[in-house]
Amino acid sequence: MELRRKDLLGIADLSPEEITLILDTAASLKEISTRPIKKVPTLRGKTVVTLFYEPSTRTRMSFEIAAKRLSADTVNLTVSASSAVKGETLADTAANLQAMQPDLLIIRHQAAGAPHFLARRLACGVINAGDGMHEHPTQALLDLLTIREAKGRLHGLKVAIVGDIAHSRVARSNIQALTKMGSQVTVTGPATMLPPYLETLGVRVVRTLEEAVAGADVIMMLRIQMERMGQMYFSTLREYSAHFGLAPRHLALAQKDVIIMHPGPINRGVEISPEVADGPYSVILDQVTNGVAVRMAVMLLLLGGERG
Amino acid sequence: MELRRKDLLGIADLSPEEITLILDTAASLKEISTRPIKKVPTLRGKTVVTLFYEPSTRTRMSFEIAAKRLSADTVNLTVSASSAVKGETLADTAANLQAMQPDLLIIRHQAAGAPHFLARRLACGVINAGDGMHEHPTQALLDLLTIREAKGRLHGLKVAIVGDIAHSRVARSNIQALTKMGSQVTVTGPATMLPPYLETLGVRVVRTLEEAVAGADVIMMLRIQMERMGQMYFSTLREYSAHFGLAPRHLALAQKDVIIMHPGPINRGVEISPEVADGPYSVILDQVTNGVAVRMAVMLLLLGGERG
Amino acid sequence: MELRRKDLLGIADLSPEEITLILDTAASLKEISTRPIKKVPTLRGKTVVTLFYEPSTRTRMSFEIAAKRLSADTVNLTVSASSAVKGETLADTAANLQAMQPDLLIIRHQAAGAPHFLARRLACGVINAGDGMHEHPTQALLDLLTIREAKGRLHGLKVAIVGDIAHSRVARSNIQALTKMGSQVTVTGPATMLPPYLETLGVRVVRTLEEAVAGADVIMMLRIQMERMGQMYFSTLREYSAHFGLAPRHLALAQKDVIIMHPGPINRGVEISPEVADGPYSVILDQVTNGVAVRMAVMLLLLGGERG
Repeated sequence: MELRRKDLLGIADLSPEEITLILDTAASLKEISTRPIKKVPTLRGKTVVTLFYEPSTRTRMSFEIAAKRLSADTVNLTVSASSAVKGETLADTAANLQAMQPDLLIIRHQAAGAPHFLARRLACGVINAGDGMHEHPTQALLDLLTIREAKGRLHGLKVAIVGDIAHSRVARSNIQALTKMGSQVTVTGPATMLPPYLETLGVRVVRTLEEAVAGADVIMMLRIQMERMGQMYFSTLREYSAHFGLAPRHLALAQKDVIIMHPGPINRGVEISPEVADGPYSVILDQVTNGVAVRMAVMLLLLGGERG
Repeated sequence: MELRRKDLLGIADLSPEEITLILDTAASLKEISTRPIKKVPTLRGKTVVTLFYEPSTRTRMSFEIAAKRLSADTVNLTVSASSAVKGETLADTAANLQAMQPDLLIIRHQAAGAPHFLARRLACGVINAGDGMHEHPTQALLDLLTIREAKGRLHGLKVAIVGDIAHSRVARSNIQALTKMGSQVTVTGPATMLPPYLETLGVRVVRTLEEAVAGADVIMMLRIQMERMGQMYFSTLREYSAHFGLAPRHLALAQKDVIIMHPGPINRGVEISPEVADGPYSVILDQVTNGVAVRMAVMLLLLGGERG
Repeated sequence: MELRRKDLLGIADLSPEEITLILDTAASLKEISTRPIKKVPTLRGKTVVTLFYEPSTRTRMSFEIAAKRLSADTVNLTVSASSAVKGETLADTAANLQAMQPDLLIIRHQAAGAPHFLARRLACGVINAGDGMHEHPTQALLDLLTIREAKGRLHGLKVAIVGDIAHSRVARSNIQALTKMGSQVTVTGPATMLPPYLETLGVRVVRTLEEAVAGADVIMMLRIQMERMGQMYFSTLREYSAHFGLAPRHLALAQKDVIIMHPGPINRGVEISPEVADGPYSVILDQVTNGVAVRMAVMLLLLGGERG
């Protein structure tokens, strides 16, 4: 089976079969990164451009390493917000990139829908590496791979997602991915951080962290965006942490083999205590490792190369 | 025939035969970027360094892609104006780069003559990627390739160049390249943007856009440098656009098969209307595609590799 | 013989035999950078990450070129001081990088000991590219290679190191490396720039530049950190230069075949006069060339590849 798509724009577009294909491919590609020569010639001669309108060394690096392990050439463009404002339109930037005949454009942009806008206009493949508060599909896919590795399945799992659900593209993509694959998602967070449409997505909303993690197979903590908290910084942060920060005592409420996830970077002592982040239930670094594998899989499947 | 040069510093140095050689080579290399594996081993093991003292993601990226499609290794150095002021001299920077034994140094610098200064001191090849208001030779060469593709020739064409002629290295390099190849160049723009020496270059100067484009085979619009307009920003811009912005009504004055060019990035609605920029006569994106091919050709000819 | 280490953190850890091994390996690798195809496949499929918390285009570039000439893949991360303050801890950043399975992490950090901290936590190799005022081992190794090339030996040489000894990691690493290899080191500089512990390192301390260079086989000038001089800038600088700036007249006091070294970038007319920096005794650019070779050697020895 093949992924018959030009682009990966969001989880919303993907069927469960496509998700499974990506996860299976990623699982088979993981072994490459453990070889002495961690490189296959699959995408030799392909040009992969990263176009990041928000700074993110980590996600950019994960894509870059993934591309290089498949032997693609990579070119990085980081566009600062200020220069983007003065400069040409996104459509013109994209048309110009396209004219240099890349094979894949990996875009992160502060505007929801920017990757979709480009994908319609460009002949090359487009991967959404995060668009505003909308989607971050490779993050959800790497989370699914990590869960499947730990649990052996995705169907019937109880997954708690905790934090600023309303503003998180990670939450949004994961909710869609997990419900498509048959997991049961419960979310919690401060009332101001819970959007109204959640029930329509088949998600259970609860008021406390304790309720959310009760019986959970998976606890997924979201990153608190410090810059969003503004004036109220310290008091709000302390209060947030008291109510929604994951601490060792919460783990006793969950399944015995619960796994703890976080998309990173971690604010230690805010949304997650160091004991939990570094403890035996944490799979946070497995998520990072799986990020490279999932991005290799997506690039390979979009460009239709042979596996190495 | 070979290009018996170490450096490409400006159009001023090039003979018509050399220009034709570069264009022919670029035309033959274009096909590489359309292959499934868009890469030839020609410059494998060569080190190409980009040294940009002015930010330019687009030109830098065009060179980087060109180098990678020839299998060269690329290293990017971007020097901010502030750190350059505090730091070592250009000669010292260049001597240090040279000591790392690169094969080609691609430099953009705000000072006219900086690439020439370096080329005299360095054993490696130097390509001028734009020096102050002086020259931008690969831009002129990609423009010539684009014109030649559309018209089948360069000799005897009527080319209008419109805008801030005085401060434009694109205009300066193109005027020399076009007149060397036998085109007839007409320029126009606000009086303050027309330098006094133009007639000595064999260029016709006219006062209005209408005169300039009358009977033109090619209309080349220059980018307005917003940052140069300072205080007078809005009123000047509106006035500029009214008098020298290219709109659909101007095309009727030109040849029926006129082509519209712009070095990018475009200020839509200022020097060119969206209808014209995106219209059927526009070859703006062909220019970008040809930029990669011309830069591949120049690198290959300077380094004397075999064609792949 | 092999370098049985995972990391290169400082000269303090190295035995004279290990230093000799690195220098011999670097000497044999120098030839690669003079070939038409300056690349060997030795580290193909290895991932080398540069993580720089202080800006340094030059050192970063030297490592990047070294890695590419050994066919490794390189990924560059530059972390600005401001974002590092807001962001995750160094340990978390490193753990995340590690999870992407790089083979080598090359780190520059403003905190002494940062590379050692990471090396204990990470499975991949760590190279210290400068940590605060502590060590800069590859700089000392390239200096030793340069001296050995010029003098044929390291044992029994008289080496003068001049400048801000107290705040210089270059001085610190070189003092250890030179004394380990049997050179006799004399240092001088303003009293406020001489740390108290110098005699315990087996170094002779003198008060004047004239005393320091008398009979010297090697004079190593340190860079004055302009930003450290603050308010007193101009008067201090003029005074510094009058007392400790190396001028042609000093060379007559040294050995006839003295060599002049500087880690760069040079402040011309401050710590060294242009006549000396560009004169026949200067080996400053040889240092830069040897920097690539030494970094190739260290990467190759740490990763245990076969020589090309």
